Amino acid sequence: MGGGARAGAGTGGAGAHAGAGTGSAHAGARTSDAGTHTGTATTSGNPHAGAGAGSAHAGAGTGGAGAHAGAATTSGNPHTGTGAGADANALADYLRAQATEFLRALRRHRESGAGAGASGPGAGGPGRTAPPADDVDAVRALRRAARRISGTLHTFQPLLDASWAEEMRPELAWLSGTLALEHAYASRLERLLQALHRLSGSAAFPAPRPVGRTTAATTATTATVPTGVPAPARPASPDRGSLTVGAAKAGALLDRQLTLARTRAHSTALQALGSSRFHAVADKVALLASEVPLRVTARPNRGATAPETTPCDLRPLAAAAEERLADAVTALPLVAAGSPYNAQALVHGLSPDPAPHPQDAPWHQVRLLLRLHRYALEALAGADAADAGDPGDVVDVRLLAAGEALDRHRDASEAAAAAAQAARTPRIAPATAYALGVLHADQRHEVEAARYAFQHSWRKEPIRLP
Amino acid sequence: MGGGARAGAGTGGAGAHAGAGTGSAHAGARTSDAGTHTGTATTSGNPHAGAGAGSAHAGAGTGGAGAHAGAATTSGNPHTGTGAGADANALADYLRAQATEFLRALRRHRESGAGAGASGPGAGGPGRTAPPADDVDAVRALRRAARRISGTLHTFQPLLDASWAEEMRPELAWLSGTLALEHAYASRLERLLQALHRLSGSAAFPAPRPVGRTTAATTATTATVPTGVPAPARPASPDRGSLTVGAAKAGALLDRQLTLARTRAHSTALQALGSSRFHAVADKVALLASEVPLRVTARPNRGATAPETTPCDLRPLAAAAEERLADAVTALPLVAAGSPYNAQALVHGLSPDPAPHPQDAPWHQVRLLLRLHRYALEALAGADAADAGDPGDVVDVRLLAAGEALDRHRDASEAAAAAAQAARTPRIAPATAYALGVLHADQRHEVEAARYAFQHSWRKEPIRLP
Repeated sequence: MGGGARAGAGTGGAGAHAGAGTGSAHAGARTSDAGTHTGTATTSGNPHAGAGAGSAHAGAGTGGAGAHAGAATTSGNPHTGTGAGADANALADYLRAQATEFLRALRRHRESGAGAGASGPGAGGPGRTAPPADDVDAVRALRRAARRISGTLHTFQPLLDASWAEEMRPELAWLSGTLALEHAYASRLERLLQALHRLSGSAAFPAPRPVGRTTAATTATTATVPTGVPAPARPASPDRGSLTVGAAKAGALLDRQLTLARTRAHSTALQALGSSRFHAVADKVALLASEVPLRVTARPNRGATAPETTPCDLRPLAAAAEERLADAVTALPLVAAGSPYNAQALVHGLSPDPAPHPQDAPWHQVRLLLRLHRYALEALAGADAADAGDPGDVVDVRLLAAGEALDRHRDASEAAAAAAQAARTPRIAPATAYALGVLHADQRHEVEAARYAFQHSWRKEPIRLP
Repeated sequence: MGGGARAGAGTGGAGAHAGAGTGSAHAGARTSDAGTHTGTATTSGNPHAGAGAGSAHAGAGTGGAGAHAGAATTSGNPHTGTGAGADANALADYLRAQATEFLRALRRHRESGAGAGASGPGAGGPGRTAPPADDVDAVRALRRAARRISGTLHTFQPLLDASWAEEMRPELAWLSGTLALEHAYASRLERLLQALHRLSGSAAFPAPRPVGRTTAATTATTATVPTGVPAPARPASPDRGSLTVGAAKAGALLDRQLTLARTRAHSTALQALGSSRFHAVADKVALLASEVPLRVTARPNRGATAPETTPCDLRPLAAAAEERLADAVTALPLVAAGSPYNAQALVHGLSPDPAPHPQDAPWHQVRLLLRLHRYALEALAGADAADAGDPGDVVDVRLLAAGEALDRHRDASEAAAAAAQAARTPRIAPATAYALGVLHADQRHEVEAARYAFQHSWRKEPIRLP
């Protein structure tokens, strides 16, 4: 099935797919997918009227543009049937590009020599075998491409070979998840140590707040972890000094625990990159770089049995992804988050609840949906760029700001949990536990601040389709 | 000197002082006091022109109203010479009224029987001898009147007998300070215990945030302190449960320490109320209730030697108090405070600095100046109410909101310090210290929230004179 699907998909240009029939079937499918976006989609009344490919595209395009006319102000060209780009072919282009990125990153990773030492260092204590910066970049690019391929398979699955996509996605999720851990531990440690310095009133770290996960990446892995909090500005009295000792001890404890976790994650990542499971994924991605297994048959949910290849529009599926995001955002307590100092994030700061706060989960979910939405926009943007030549227009600054706020939310949430976890270490000094308590509360307030920042940027955002 | 001054002040009505001369001397003095408020004060050009009392009042009234014309929109009647109320006589009325309140509260305190047991209970351990609610109210009324008399002496000192005022103020400050301590410890304990419950996700305290010091008073003194944090909603795993134990232990530790401090403060207050020092203060206040020692001579800073009794205007001195407040507010970091989640309040959360954060001091100072400004408005309002009959109009809601925010700022700052202090208790469990650290950070964020609330209410406020 998989081989046949790939063969059927082919690598033809825009005209090859745009000329195929069953445009009416697609128009009807679009209506059922995006029921609330019917708007001006006038072609849905006759699902099997046998209209040509051109008119089917025009109807779908108009429907999409009309439903989002209120928000789609910046793109300017609503693509009313003129562009043949936003079809499954554009999807194939996007997937091929990401697969190429994946293979390029993999080559860089192998050339950096990190793969050679896979069996050498490992869980044998915190050996501080910081990988070279080039390999860090390569692994990040690998994760980046894997995330995009996986997300695109999810959003546009109806256009792709079902069994192939279902087989591919968990493998990509496993890979990006495994590769993400090492960096997550490193940036978590950096965030916590920076916070400890900030809370100690130290000027050692000039930046008042750690920045997002992305920009902190290179420094996190190469930073030399301070063994002691810097000396206080004024001579401390003995009892006050013990708290400074507490901050230093808390930092050392976090350093020990998170460095150990990072080292283990590093070994796991190296093992994963050398495993046969990874090689199977890489082979599939290599195949993807040359040809994308588009769906051969029409959609099964229509009940139609037209077996020819369908030049489906990406917009309805992208709109559905956006709607899932909008629905999830609507379910968030945005009003509370928009009221500063609502003290919601720390409301379970001392509760016996498990470390990942249940109240954080909807925000994490929105973060994932926002990411899927962004990837869908990227896939569409490739199509639009081919049409209109404005690729940079799609990067919505406010969408980026909202995404960064949610990244910060996730990072702070996990850092707070790590501080709480460290405080459960047996036989720590009370001063250490006190510092960890302050640190935990500080990170939970950072969680609250990130929610405020998210609702702030989201409120300002006119949701637009490219 | 004191006796003569009192005799010279008298208890005459409004007309008695309004008709007195030297209006021109006052107009000149007003200009020097409130240099930035000259505005339309046209009479300042001829300081010794010998104008009658009526015209001098008109000039001063117009000057005051003109300078604040942009803000004074609600009072409606700018008192252009028609009202003779805002002179030293109104000041005497206000002081007499506060002295009467003081004596009434003192009688209530003695009748409640709290004074009889002054020698009985005391520092012999945390005996939990909660005073009856009636006595709590009486002591609060006593403090309230003492604060107002002391503040009025400060603001309007140039109109009062200097040596008498200088002798009176420190005694009143000692009294209100001594009486305030017991309530402060009680409300601090209540605030911290409420925060511990809130942080544990407990619904035992329905109010999500402790309200102001004033409304929490009666519950604070009668609340039975819980000995354990309520059971968690779900069965806690052993290591998570230890943190709940930590919250309970932290609450018990704070309860022990602050109850002991409160008991001591209670004894000290009872001793103070039975001391000869207090009786001397009470005698002076009793004298004040019948006659106010206004200044006999003209102001020394004018260099004039006119020795007759002067019907001076209260407005310039009230405006000077308002200006001192405005200057202090200007010096605050309001821009930073207006940016939510600026993380400034906790910036020294783990530093070896002393417990009262240096950054809090300017805010505490503004709180005191705001209180002086409010008392000055009250003194003026009595005069205006006598003229126009609108006493309730003067209570500026936004001024009250700003004052409440600063009260909350002070309470949270002191509560955070108490949590940090408790964490320095030797041999406490790490879980206790952790809970205290979370609590400390929570209260420091409450400090930050109070600053945000203050700048919010202050920014909205058109500063007005009644």
